[in-house]
Amino acid sequence: MFRHPSFSVEPWAVTESNLDLEVLAQSESILALSNGHIGMRGNLDEGEPHGLPGTYLNSVYELRPLPYPEPGFGYPEADQTVVNVTNGKVIRLLVDDEPFDVRYGELVSHVRTLDLQAGVLRREVQWRSPAGALVRVSSTRLVSFAERAVAAISYSVEPLERSVQVVLQSELVANEPLPPRTADDPRVSASLDQTLEGEESLSWPAGGLLVHRVRRSGILLAAAMEHDIEAPEGSATSSEASADVARVTVVATLEPSQRVGVTKFLAYGWSTQRSRPALHDQVRGAVQSARQIGWEGLAASQRAFLEDYWSGVDVELDGDPEIQQAVRFSLFHVLQAGARAEGRPIPAKGLTGPGYDGHAFWDTEIYVLGLLGLSRPEAVADALRWRHSTLPRARARARQLGFEGAAFPWRTIDGQECSGYWPASTAAFHVAADVAYAVVRYVRTTGDVAFEAEVGLELLVETARLWRSLGHHHTDGSFRIDGVTGPDEYSALADNNVYTNLMAQLNLHAAADVCVRHRSQAAALGVGDEEISWWRDAARDMFIPYDERLGVHPQAQGFTDHEVWDFARTRVDQYPLMLHFHYFDLYRKQVVKQSDLVLAMHLRPEAFSAEDKERNFTYYEPITVRDSSLSACTQAVIGAETGHLGLAYDYVAESSLIDLDDLEHNTRDGLHMAALAGAWTALVEGLGGVRIENTRLVVRPRIPEGLQGLRFRMRYQGRRLQVDVRPSEARYQLLSGDDLSLWHHDEELLLRAEHEEVRPISALPARPAPAQPPGREPGRGRATP
Amino acid sequence: MFRHPSFSVEPWAVTESNLDLEVLAQSESILALSNGHIGMRGNLDEGEPHGLPGTYLNSVYELRPLPYPEPGFGYPEADQTVVNVTNGKVIRLLVDDEPFDVRYGELVSHVRTLDLQAGVLRREVQWRSPAGALVRVSSTRLVSFAERAVAAISYSVEPLERSVQVVLQSELVANEPLPPRTADDPRVSASLDQTLEGEESLSWPAGGLLVHRVRRSGILLAAAMEHDIEAPEGSATSSEASADVARVTVVATLEPSQRVGVTKFLAYGWSTQRSRPALHDQVRGAVQSARQIGWEGLAASQRAFLEDYWSGVDVELDGDPEIQQAVRFSLFHVLQAGARAEGRPIPAKGLTGPGYDGHAFWDTEIYVLGLLGLSRPEAVADALRWRHSTLPRARARARQLGFEGAAFPWRTIDGQECSGYWPASTAAFHVAADVAYAVVRYVRTTGDVAFEAEVGLELLVETARLWRSLGHHHTDGSFRIDGVTGPDEYSALADNNVYTNLMAQLNLHAAADVCVRHRSQAAALGVGDEEISWWRDAARDMFIPYDERLGVHPQAQGFTDHEVWDFARTRVDQYPLMLHFHYFDLYRKQVVKQSDLVLAMHLRPEAFSAEDKERNFTYYEPITVRDSSLSACTQAVIGAETGHLGLAYDYVAESSLIDLDDLEHNTRDGLHMAALAGAWTALVEGLGGVRIENTRLVVRPRIPEGLQGLRFRMRYQGRRLQVDVRPSEARYQLLSGDDLSLWHHDEELLLRAEHEEVRPISALPARPAPAQPPGREPGRGRATP
Repeated sequence: MFRHPSFSVEPWAVTESNLDLEVLAQSESILALSNGHIGMRGNLDEGEPHGLPGTYLNSVYELRPLPYPEPGFGYPEADQTVVNVTNGKVIRLLVDDEPFDVRYGELVSHVRTLDLQAGVLRREVQWRSPAGALVRVSSTRLVSFAERAVAAISYSVEPLERSVQVVLQSELVANEPLPPRTADDPRVSASLDQTLEGEESLSWPAGGLLVHRVRRSGILLAAAMEHDIEAPEGSATSSEASADVARVTVVATLEPSQRVGVTKFLAYGWSTQRSRPALHDQVRGAVQSARQIGWEGLAASQRAFLEDYWSGVDVELDGDPEIQQAVRFSLFHVLQAGARAEGRPIPAKGLTGPGYDGHAFWDTEIYVLGLLGLSRPEAVADALRWRHSTLPRARARARQLGFEGAAFPWRTIDGQECSGYWPASTAAFHVAADVAYAVVRYVRTTGDVAFEAEVGLELLVETARLWRSLGHHHTDGSFRIDGVTGPDEYSALADNNVYTNLMAQLNLHAAADVCVRHRSQAAALGVGDEEISWWRDAARDMFIPYDERLGVHPQAQGFTDHEVWDFARTRVDQYPLMLHFHYFDLYRKQVVKQSDLVLAMHLRPEAFSAEDKERNFTYYEPITVRDSSLSACTQAVIGAETGHLGLAYDYVAESSLIDLDDLEHNTRDGLHMAALAGAWTALVEGLGGVRIENTRLVVRPRIPEGLQGLRFRMRYQGRRLQVDVRPSEARYQLLSGDDLSLWHHDEELLLRAEHEEVRPISALPARPAPAQPPGREPGRGRATP
Repeated sequence: MFRHPSFSVEPWAVTESNLDLEVLAQSESILALSNGHIGMRGNLDEGEPHGLPGTYLNSVYELRPLPYPEPGFGYPEADQTVVNVTNGKVIRLLVDDEPFDVRYGELVSHVRTLDLQAGVLRREVQWRSPAGALVRVSSTRLVSFAERAVAAISYSVEPLERSVQVVLQSELVANEPLPPRTADDPRVSASLDQTLEGEESLSWPAGGLLVHRVRRSGILLAAAMEHDIEAPEGSATSSEASADVARVTVVATLEPSQRVGVTKFLAYGWSTQRSRPALHDQVRGAVQSARQIGWEGLAASQRAFLEDYWSGVDVELDGDPEIQQAVRFSLFHVLQAGARAEGRPIPAKGLTGPGYDGHAFWDTEIYVLGLLGLSRPEAVADALRWRHSTLPRARARARQLGFEGAAFPWRTIDGQECSGYWPASTAAFHVAADVAYAVVRYVRTTGDVAFEAEVGLELLVETARLWRSLGHHHTDGSFRIDGVTGPDEYSALADNNVYTNLMAQLNLHAAADVCVRHRSQAAALGVGDEEISWWRDAARDMFIPYDERLGVHPQAQGFTDHEVWDFARTRVDQYPLMLHFHYFDLYRKQVVKQSDLVLAMHLRPEAFSAEDKERNFTYYEPITVRDSSLSACTQAVIGAETGHLGLAYDYVAESSLIDLDDLEHNTRDGLHMAALAGAWTALVEGLGGVRIENTRLVVRPRIPEGLQGLRFRMRYQGRRLQVDVRPSEARYQLLSGDDLSLWHHDEELLLRAEHEEVRPISALPARPAPAQPPGREPGRGRATP
């Protein structure tokens, strides 16, 4: 039995009221702070004990040679692995010469709260030292949304019974020892010890600075700290610095009514090009600026930033406080991952842990950007600008593989392919179409034509070129894409994966359309009428296999002819299957790790009839094991669309509770950003029934029995609107912006300011929900071994 | 342009008349001696210069952890790599204090001859030292077929102009430094330096002994030497030993008419179980016994052994001395690889080099054992006994993968899977059927019923069980085997590979038949009527895909729907394709590395009509690139069967000249045993038209224009017979043994002693031969970059 940290249920916060050291690493992920540029795991202020110490800067990575048992052409040579950078969170405390460490003495009380409105992590502890001195330690930590390079900690200590001598050591620490890598689980990260080479260390009164170079990648990074110190008269402050530590020390004798308060300002910077002096000056300037703004100023801007966010994205559930909390927790963390990434990737774990080596995958485009597009669209533009910035590498990769256009990597930090297992990565060419899809969706939800011309066009053109060269015309006239891997990681190297072909079709059409809209920019990329026609022909001729015998779409050609996995003989403790069965056997049988054909029905709804959707969903549910966290939300969406509202809601629970309940047993390595975004997808696109169908915003809401109401806000083409779904009616409100047309099912509504539109929702006939593999039923009580 | 060593054309020898240091490693492979237990590369006696120093003992290997960029369930943890063991070939020479090294002074003459009848490597050199002393050095080396643990060298030196002082140092040397591994070519081996740990060293007058343990595998190995020394009066002999060297030194002053002659006897032994003292005694005894037999005795038994071999296998070509030599060279080396392996594998390179890490593959069963079965059938029984001895590991592997029966490894030394790239190895389950096929063929060619009951039955049962659990019945009633890799390494993970399905079908039928023949032994393995019926049903229902549109068999389901490789845009210097293109693209297109469907037509001829064979051969020729050395012989067989005799003969040339002409540019790493055996296959099964069809020996010979005659001998069911093919008639002779029925085309003949049967051969209508990919046409002048 796995243990999980437990948190109290409340609407706007996640509170941990007792400290379980066994599951510390999970708490650290859940209580992580980030703005998309800086990430800080919820490590205790005093540094130890820890599960996994972690401070990250987006795109600061180390290179690690990839070893192969047998070499092969086109295999990536090196992995990029996120680096645990200089830790600025550390504030050590000595009480009468005894180090404050919760493993010793007595932890009288412990509360940590992640405040989803204030955007801070608060901690309040009463601790009795082994020698019997009782102190209260309070801290509040923030990573600023407003000041991208800045984090700050407000820390205080006070004696509660008798006077004590305290020493505070506030530090920057580089090259923290990391726990050894344990399991043979491909999802965990490589551990890199001592990978930061000291370039400069410096201290000044109440401040300090460290500059390091990452050994093999050569990335230069700098961290600086400044302090405002409030201490009784007679206290002493000193500072010092050596290669891997900068330290500001406060020594004070405190009477019961006295305290030492420290506000620590932190600034981070990194570069592959700028010089050490330039970085030095950059972080020193940033930390001085932060001190000037002050703690109150930073806290106020943090709250204001979040207030704006919540005004455009909040989801409220009437009658389910547990999911209510989980959904807000999800929305908060996705914002943290993407808010200020600005031209850098949004990794699968955000900046909450080292899982997947800090890599970004296609999930960002398909799952994370879906949520951000309707809540913080500028973050979507940034994320796609990052992809755009990697086009030279994607073009080079396509050329190496023998194709035209751009082949984006399966997993990467800076655009270079980092996967050493090509059947599940290089062959998963759908990444190209996923990027294209995100471009199309962004432009539809924002109308950002300038972005389309500057960034979107080239992404669409280069991905369309890839598809044209990847596919071929069969003698029967169809356009086919052979030997690729779709989203489902329990299949590989199959012909005509339906998801891939449908997404490629969309990509080809979109490229043609956008080139017609932006003729001169298209011409600058060498696109002429001939190429546009080529794309349209390939899209028109795209082969979509269909199994007439079963009346369903095979996930890929031949899939439904394969043997069905023997679920009856698979024990519950054998999930995830990939850790207990060979890929050989998984690939050749009908067993689905994550939605693939069902995801195609979500993203290309117009390509399937309602009957197709129902039959396909019913076919794939019993063979989909959800060993990936990416699956539940999609099953929620199609479950809801095909009328299985209760089932859809169970998937909402699974997706939103994935980390709070540690359903995948690997929250310790970081949060599952795509699944957390998927909780929103499941609610808003699933139960809420929101779709962007060409230029139409369509809403087909329905909520399951037991839920009294579902209310959600979203941003769309410069407006903010709210949809309030009740069991038998939906209420639409324009919260800001110009009048807006939307469709409630098949009826067009014109939304105007301060005027609520109310429409009835027809009841659906009750129908039996399809079954899942035994032991893999979704829901809050999901069986864990 | 690559350079190749050149050898003079002669019928019974391979002679090198000048020494080209650039291609020394290739010569060392070609001039290697082996008896299947001990292998010695053709390194110069004095040890240096060398291309690749190599002395091997069958199944003495080191373990090397297999690194994976991403771990996966069921991946092998360690590779077994053949070890360069204690080198007993070394006889260093000093002439007036200057070391005899062909790189210095002047090599006045150099001749080395591999004598295919005497089974020795002779060398005669005249060398002028930098100081001007001219000497003749002669040596003859043999690895004894008769005495499995023994090798010997007869060495002499004599001055030719003036008197010289000579020092001979005859050594055992362990841990020779190996050249660094160079290329990223998966076909070369891992280099293991300093992997032998000294356990014992000892010297005695004129002898010495070293015992070492292989570091990680723990294998214990011992080598001993003894010498007979003939030297003028006044010469001195001494000996010494340290951990990695044992040395016998002879110092003599020679007048022009005098010589020093040394006969060096060597014995080797190894064990995983026996103690150091036991091994010590074993090799010491063996070397004393060898000395007792003496050089002349060893040489005589060597010649007798070969005389017996040639009497049952010789192939003579009238009008083609180049191929004549190449075929005898091939037959000689295949004998060397397999003669005395005795319960150990026959590796892909024999014991001629470290290529493929010294692993054995399925090629042994399908290619090498085909030749040995009709020439030295006891070697086939031995090789299959080795497979049988690995059944516990093969069963465990099947269990790990979730299957019944036995899953033999793709590459191994001792039965453990050693491949780190599973799509081309673990998924290539046809290995099981290849073993079963070899069992069936051996029993048919020998009638060895005892072997069938003791060894064959269990191999057939366990492989049949594998197929039954690997396949599944489709709703249409067919039995299908999905997601496997066939022989062609440019395809992988395909459904219903025709070769695999047909071979599995044969395997299932054979298992059923043999269990019926040996009821009680079958029952002891738990085989009952129910299981036998299961096998027969699965065999009967076996799905063999067929492309009605093209009228050909697809290599695997869907293969002929794939895009054809763009041969026109592939440059000649881009072969082998796997070094210049990604497997992703190779796998998904119609491009064939080596015969797969064509091999199925060779091994399961009755499963195809004559029209099928012609159409299939014509279809696959233009897409088969022969980047594997295993392909040409099969194309020869089917080319001949479908009437393309000239083309077939070109393939004979390619297969037989593969190493003499270094066609694959990797002869340096060892000889291609399967291709060399394939030269025989191409001639005897191709032009000779020999087939074993159930209990019938059928011969359908035809020779191409330009060849005046083809004569070959073979052993069959205890007889020796000879087939003499002329352009318009075939002559059959029983050389020894009882009367024998055979079929000349459709006519049954009864062969009796001393009575030649002559039958006419009808001429075939001329027909155009199918084309190969541009630049990949077979023949002696095959383009090399």
